[in-house]
Amino acid sequence: MQFKIFNQDALARVGELHFSRGVIQTPVFIPVGTYATVKTMTPDELLAMGAEIVLGNTYHLMVRPGEDVISLHKGLHNFMGWQKPILTDSGGFQIWSLSKKTKINDDFVEFDSPVNGDIIRLTPEKAMQIQDTLGSDIQMVLDECTHYPASKSEAESSMLRSVKWAHRSFDAFNAVKHDNDSALFGIIQGGMFQELRKRNLQQLMDLNFHGLAIGGLSVGEPEQERMDVLESLVPKMPKRLPRYLMGVGTPVDIVKSVSVGIDMFDCVIPTRHARNGQIYTSGGVVRIKNAKHQRDTNPLDANCSCYTCQNFSRSYIRHLLKCNEILGSRLATIHNLFFYLDLMSQIQESIRKNEFKKFANAFIQSYQQ
Amino acid sequence: MQFKIFNQDALARVGELHFSRGVIQTPVFIPVGTYATVKTMTPDELLAMGAEIVLGNTYHLMVRPGEDVISLHKGLHNFMGWQKPILTDSGGFQIWSLSKKTKINDDFVEFDSPVNGDIIRLTPEKAMQIQDTLGSDIQMVLDECTHYPASKSEAESSMLRSVKWAHRSFDAFNAVKHDNDSALFGIIQGGMFQELRKRNLQQLMDLNFHGLAIGGLSVGEPEQERMDVLESLVPKMPKRLPRYLMGVGTPVDIVKSVSVGIDMFDCVIPTRHARNGQIYTSGGVVRIKNAKHQRDTNPLDANCSCYTCQNFSRSYIRHLLKCNEILGSRLATIHNLFFYLDLMSQIQESIRKNEFKKFANAFIQSYQQ
Repeated sequence: MQFKIFNQDALARVGELHFSRGVIQTPVFIPVGTYATVKTMTPDELLAMGAEIVLGNTYHLMVRPGEDVISLHKGLHNFMGWQKPILTDSGGFQIWSLSKKTKINDDFVEFDSPVNGDIIRLTPEKAMQIQDTLGSDIQMVLDECTHYPASKSEAESSMLRSVKWAHRSFDAFNAVKHDNDSALFGIIQGGMFQELRKRNLQQLMDLNFHGLAIGGLSVGEPEQERMDVLESLVPKMPKRLPRYLMGVGTPVDIVKSVSVGIDMFDCVIPTRHARNGQIYTSGGVVRIKNAKHQRDTNPLDANCSCYTCQNFSRSYIRHLLKCNEILGSRLATIHNLFFYLDLMSQIQESIRKNEFKKFANAFIQSYQQ
Repeated sequence: MQFKIFNQDALARVGELHFSRGVIQTPVFIPVGTYATVKTMTPDELLAMGAEIVLGNTYHLMVRPGEDVISLHKGLHNFMGWQKPILTDSGGFQIWSLSKKTKINDDFVEFDSPVNGDIIRLTPEKAMQIQDTLGSDIQMVLDECTHYPASKSEAESSMLRSVKWAHRSFDAFNAVKHDNDSALFGIIQGGMFQELRKRNLQQLMDLNFHGLAIGGLSVGEPEQERMDVLESLVPKMPKRLPRYLMGVGTPVDIVKSVSVGIDMFDCVIPTRHARNGQIYTSGGVVRIKNAKHQRDTNPLDANCSCYTCQNFSRSYIRHLLKCNEILGSRLATIHNLFFYLDLMSQIQESIRKNEFKKFANAFIQSYQQ
C-alpha cells in the first residue's frame, strides 16, 4: 500500500491510497458490506456510483458462511464478486457489541455463535489469519472496544489489553507472506480520555503500521466529547499515515472529522437509514415515509444525479417502502450511498482548491440533520 | 393492438402483439408487478433481460397507493418507470382470493380495504375506469372467479354473472376514448365444466374483444383437470385472437399449455419462488437453501447466461438467502425470470421451426419439478 497526500488545507488532507487492486481517493467513505454484501447492492451498482473500497465484517463472516466457505472461493473478493480493495475489521467491535456471553482475558476472547451456539474463540493471531484467508487489502488488529461510559482506570486497562493484542496482531501479520499488498492498521483506544488516547498513540508508534485507526468512538458519547478527543488526538498522529475513524457517521460528522484531519470513514448509516426511509439530500434529511410525501412527484433530491433521482418520484419510493417492497430499499440505498460518495468528492475537491473551510461551513449550516 | 401469427405448429402458435408502446413476442410470459414493481427488480433490469410487458394488479394498486396517486403521475407507466406495455387485471381475482368480508351481487362487489378497513366498492364500470387511469395497454373485464370445487349450478350462476359484467365492462371500455391503443380482453369462466366453458366462449364472442383470457384455472384443481378443460376449450377459441391463460404456471405447465394453443401467461412463481430459494434451472428445480449447496462454487445453472450465473456461486447465493440478505432475493429473481423469458424464446424458436413437439417432449422429460 502507498499513501500519497496531494494537498493539506488547514488540517484537512486530500490524497490517494494505492493498492494493486485499485486506487482510493481520500477522504474516503467505505460502504459497509457486513455479510459479504453491501445491503441491497450488486458490485456493479457500487462500481457505477464510484465506490472504490468496501468493508467486510470478520465477525459476521466467520459466523456465516464461515471462513472455510470463503476460502473455497479463494477469498472474499471472488465470493462477493468485488475486485477492488476490501477493508476488514478484526471482529473485536462486534464481539463487544453483539455477543451476549463473552469471556475475555489477555489471551483470547470467546463468544457464543449466534447461529448455532458454538463457542468461538478469537485471538489476535486468529483474527489476522482469518483476515488473510478473506484476502483483505486493509486488515485491522484485534482490539477491545472500551465501553461507554468508562472510568479512567477501566479505559486504561482495556487500552493496555489492546496494546498487547496490537503487538501480537502485528507479529502475526508479519509472520506470513501475503498474496497481495495488504496493509495492517493499528487502532487507537483510550475511551474519552485525551491523555490515554495520546499515550496509546505513542505505544502504537513502536510498531510499523501502514495506517492508524481511531476506535471506541461513536459508542454513545455526546458529539462534543467525540470532537474533543479528535481535536486533541488527530493533529498528533503522524502525517504520513492514513487516519481512519471507525464507524462514523452522519454527513455532518464526516465533514467535521475531515476538518481535524481524518482520511477514512465507514458507517452503516447511509444503507441502514435508507431501508428505514431516512434519506440524505442536499436540503437535509427527508423522512420519506411521512404522509406529506404521498403525492409528491418530485425526486428525492432535485440536485442529485443518481439512478433513483433520475427515474422515480418521492411518491413512488414512499409507496414501495410502505409496502415493504425490496425495490424501495434498493432505490433509497442507491440514493443515500450516492449522496455519501458525492459528498466525499466535493470534500476532496474543496481541499484541493484550499476551500475546505468555506465548503464545510456552508454544508454544516445548510444541513438539517 | 394488432396480433400477427407467424406460424402454427400443430396447435402451438408463434406471433407478435403490436402496441404503440412496443412489440411483444408470443407465446409470452408476463412478469407480475403487483404493487407497481416486479418484486426486487428495476425496470432497467427487466428490459436488459428482454421483458416486453409486465402485469399490474388493479386491486392492490387501488388499495395502495390508490388510483389518485398514480393519476398524479399520469399513469402506471410513469409511476413505476416502465414504458413498455402493461397488462392490468380487473381486481376480481384478488377480491375473490384475498378479501375476508366480500359482498357480491350482480350489481357490484364490495370488500374491506386491508389497509384501513374502508369499504371499497367495485363495479365493472369502476374496474374499467381505474384501468384507464392506470393507462393500461391490455385491460381485463371484471369477472367473478368461480371457487373450486364448485357444483355445475354454482359454476353456471357464477359464469352468468361474469357474462353480465363482461357486457358492462365492454360498454364502459368503449364509451371512452383511450389515450393509447389499449386492448380489452374478455375472460372465459365456467369452472371445470367443459360444456360451461364452451357456452361461455360463445357468449363472449358476441362482444368484439381484442383477446380472450381463460380465468378460474390454477385455483387448486389437479393438473389433469386443468389440461382437460384447456384441451377441449382452446381449439374452439377463434384463431385470430390472442389467448391468455391467467395465473399459470410452472415451466412444464407453460410448455404443456402452449401445446394446446395458449399465447400468453402470467404467474408469481418465478419471482416468489426465487425469494424462497426455489431455483429453476436447465436441470430442474434446485432448492438452493439445502445444505448440499453450502460449498458449491458452481453457478446456479452452468448453461445460463444471466447476470447471476455469470458472476456468483450457488454457495454465495445460498449464504445471502440464509442471511435474509436482499441481494439474495435479487440474484435469485434475476435468474428465475431470465430462465422463464429464455424458455419462452426457446418455445418461440421451436414453433417457428415446426419443432415444438420435439422441444416440448424433451423439456418435459428432462425437467424434474
